Amino acid sequence: MAEDAQLKAHSPLKAHSQLETLSEIKNYTQANQRQILQDFTSLLALPNVSANSQDMLVNAKWITNYIAHRGFTSEVISAGRAPYILAEKKVPRASKTILIYAHFDGQPVEPANWATPPFTPTLIDKPIERGGKPVKWDGTSPLNPEWRLAARSAGDDKAPVIALMAALDAMDSAGITPTVNIKLILDGEEEVGSPTLETILQKHGEKLAADLMLFCDGPMHPSRNKQLVFGMRGSMTVDVTTYGALSPLHSGHYGNFAPNPTNKLMRLLTSMTDEQGNILIDGYNDQVRPISSAEREALASIPKVDEQLKHDLAIAESLGKNVRVEEGVLSPAIIIKGFQAGGVGSQARNIIQPSATASINMRLAADQTPAFLRDKMEAHIKRQGYTIVYDKPSIELRRKHNKLVMLDWRAGAYPAFRSKIDSPQAKKLTAIMNSIDDKPTILTPTLGGSLPIYLFEQALDMPIIILPIANHDNNQHGRNENLRLQNLWDAVEIYAAILSSYDK
Amino acid sequence: MAEDAQLKAHSPLKAHSQLETLSEIKNYTQANQRQILQDFTSLLALPNVSANSQDMLVNAKWITNYIAHRGFTSEVISAGRAPYILAEKKVPRASKTILIYAHFDGQPVEPANWATPPFTPTLIDKPIERGGKPVKWDGTSPLNPEWRLAARSAGDDKAPVIALMAALDAMDSAGITPTVNIKLILDGEEEVGSPTLETILQKHGEKLAADLMLFCDGPMHPSRNKQLVFGMRGSMTVDVTTYGALSPLHSGHYGNFAPNPTNKLMRLLTSMTDEQGNILIDGYNDQVRPISSAEREALASIPKVDEQLKHDLAIAESLGKNVRVEEGVLSPAIIIKGFQAGGVGSQARNIIQPSATASINMRLAADQTPAFLRDKMEAHIKRQGYTIVYDKPSIELRRKHNKLVMLDWRAGAYPAFRSKIDSPQAKKLTAIMNSIDDKPTILTPTLGGSLPIYLFEQALDMPIIILPIANHDNNQHGRNENLRLQNLWDAVEIYAAILSSYDK
Repeated sequence: MAEDAQLKAHSPLKAHSQLETLSEIKNYTQANQRQILQDFTSLLALPNVSANSQDMLVNAKWITNYIAHRGFTSEVISAGRAPYILAEKKVPRASKTILIYAHFDGQPVEPANWATPPFTPTLIDKPIERGGKPVKWDGTSPLNPEWRLAARSAGDDKAPVIALMAALDAMDSAGITPTVNIKLILDGEEEVGSPTLETILQKHGEKLAADLMLFCDGPMHPSRNKQLVFGMRGSMTVDVTTYGALSPLHSGHYGNFAPNPTNKLMRLLTSMTDEQGNILIDGYNDQVRPISSAEREALASIPKVDEQLKHDLAIAESLGKNVRVEEGVLSPAIIIKGFQAGGVGSQARNIIQPSATASINMRLAADQTPAFLRDKMEAHIKRQGYTIVYDKPSIELRRKHNKLVMLDWRAGAYPAFRSKIDSPQAKKLTAIMNSIDDKPTILTPTLGGSLPIYLFEQALDMPIIILPIANHDNNQHGRNENLRLQNLWDAVEIYAAILSSYDK
Repeated sequence: MAEDAQLKAHSPLKAHSQLETLSEIKNYTQANQRQILQDFTSLLALPNVSANSQDMLVNAKWITNYIAHRGFTSEVISAGRAPYILAEKKVPRASKTILIYAHFDGQPVEPANWATPPFTPTLIDKPIERGGKPVKWDGTSPLNPEWRLAARSAGDDKAPVIALMAALDAMDSAGITPTVNIKLILDGEEEVGSPTLETILQKHGEKLAADLMLFCDGPMHPSRNKQLVFGMRGSMTVDVTTYGALSPLHSGHYGNFAPNPTNKLMRLLTSMTDEQGNILIDGYNDQVRPISSAEREALASIPKVDEQLKHDLAIAESLGKNVRVEEGVLSPAIIIKGFQAGGVGSQARNIIQPSATASINMRLAADQTPAFLRDKMEAHIKRQGYTIVYDKPSIELRRKHNKLVMLDWRAGAYPAFRSKIDSPQAKKLTAIMNSIDDKPTILTPTLGGSLPIYLFEQALDMPIIILPIANHDNNQHGRNENLRLQNLWDAVEIYAAILSSYDK
């Protein structure tokens, strides 16, 4: 009897066509919006800056409890830093396994910059930058799919776990059994570069054996078409500090005498790129892998969104003039992400700063290595006449060198990742995705974000494909991060389609 | 009898030679260090950011009470903003009057940057930047004159009122009567550009009639010689904001597509000056008054401190190569005093900022006018391809103009001031100063700071000479502002010498 019950529970009650499946999932989602949103809100309310281990454990506990209700066994592991969750749901008679990656940590927040508190998830009617305001929902009427839920990690990257469980709930409610086993690896330190992922994979890699790895992170194409991504930019960071006098100086008494570190830093940084963002550092681009003809074809079939993007972002001219956004990410970029050198507005004081610091984000193209780029950047800085130090310079060094710079390379570095766009696994997944609606799935050679995929490539033996679900304008990493509700409902459908038909 | 008593009280008990006077003042100061320091500490403990009117009134009340004990009648006036104090001490039989200016407001503070709390005056053994630490004083043993009292406004500009009253106390104790009437105007809003001073002078100017005006503000020459100053730089501020996309963008997804406002701002700002600080803006220097031969002579007799300054400030090379610091302030300067465009270090996030803002302090030379410089700067910015707005630009403007800049000129502007170094009044004052010790008084054509002196020049009919008393390394406007104790004791002596012998 026990056997019978088990058999029954895991047999499809009826044979579902792909169309029927999708329709039932859609109905379920529509009828259960309130519950799905409530679950998402509960998870987003948990602060998740990776450095705060206690916060991350609270997140991990919430998630393991949440997925346990859908038949997942989990373990929370760590290698001395933030927690990771490994989980598995075995499906009787399934012979294949899909491994799904997402992360549950978020970028640090500056709450003062947010229109709504970052850990008080709030429904807004449109993006704040376009005049969006919080909306009151009565809890029963259908939710406007263009509304967004605003909170840190709404777009990056707490939605996949919610949508995936909703997909399983929807399938369960419709009597549809997954065709594959499901494994999860949920990362608690992605936003700081997953510093212990390599150790985690060394210790626990064998538990992750699967046939295909889906990386669920990153924003979708601005056209809102479904999308599969085959590469990611690499990323590394260097903080650059230049020096003036030892202490802040009155700008009147010492202006025209004391060198201004802000001017030094500006001159140094502007020497690295031209007005179009092209890199001027000698030899910096030598390793860059050329774009293949298959990739050029894929690029050409992606709907052009540059003009719409420029309109939405209120940009008059994009960098590189005629280079489309999807092609730009195949090239390296040097981005000044932060510059701090004294207050402005009401915080301005009439002083010459003792130092100025910028934080540079270097985005890597395929085959570029962090060590090589560091060499090239340092050689460039030396050619500008600078002496480089790696720790706060002594007063003696400051007296000796007019052009003295401190470089801090301590942040983590990701090489880029770029895999084949036309492998059999890619074609199978593309076919499932294309069956969902009549909009062709966009095949993107490289997405702009950086994920620790190169570590999985090294440690695991399976194809890795990225499946993003967040709206492109989710303000990932910035203030007023949000997920568009339609993206959440679509994600439920996409996951259900894959799980129900990958090994059908 | 009443007449007799009055007569007696105001007659010198004995004729004091200049030498005797100075010796008695010195003895008094030495014996009363504890009390003088206590008074100074009490005044410095009162927060004095000009915008906080309640705080400023507390300061004004403390000061009027303090000077009333030395025979001053005062009134606290305002023109709708911070308070000013007008005060007067009449001396029977004195036929001349000296008007003394100081200010009692201070620059805003960032307490996190201070080694000791800015409004908890603390004795330190040397400047914090040179390893200074708080010291415990037993309250009785002689104070080390190289110690400093650290607090906001210790150097700029609460010391004059303390030193002046101590000078009167010392003279009184020695039976020395001032030879002149004394008037005070104490400014409660100097650090924000004395926005209502013009109105105050229109309404109350006739109360300030005097024979000579002493401006007691600014740091002394680094040689620590006594000093008279005949000019001040002008100062004006503009905040410059450049724009990128409407909202913060993920630097990976949009790097090589979205323009970075930080790069735009850096390019715009570096176009304004060369590496030596020389101004490259077309026509900007057209109004600058040349240095006269009398001024060149005065400059040549000032002890050279450039090498010592560079050592103390830990500067390898000063700007302008061979231009000495005293000459540099006779030229205009453009100083980037603040630059804010996203966090660095642990505050850095992988985003492209939507905007970047710098605050520029323009220091004016004699005869340069704010309106002219604004025109020249705006013409330069336009030549770089920019469209200028003065308020937050609309989304439509941002879509239209790749190079869009917002300028905020709202902060106050001071023209420069430069008066004759060889007038009779200047010579008289110089002679008194030179009698104090055997170090010649330094006659400085222009000090680097900016004071609202041009308004007094317009409103009052008397020579105006600046008498600074603060140590050059007082960290004016910055963190860890301080007054060297010897400077306080010296100031008592200088004031006593002037008051006792100006009309002898």
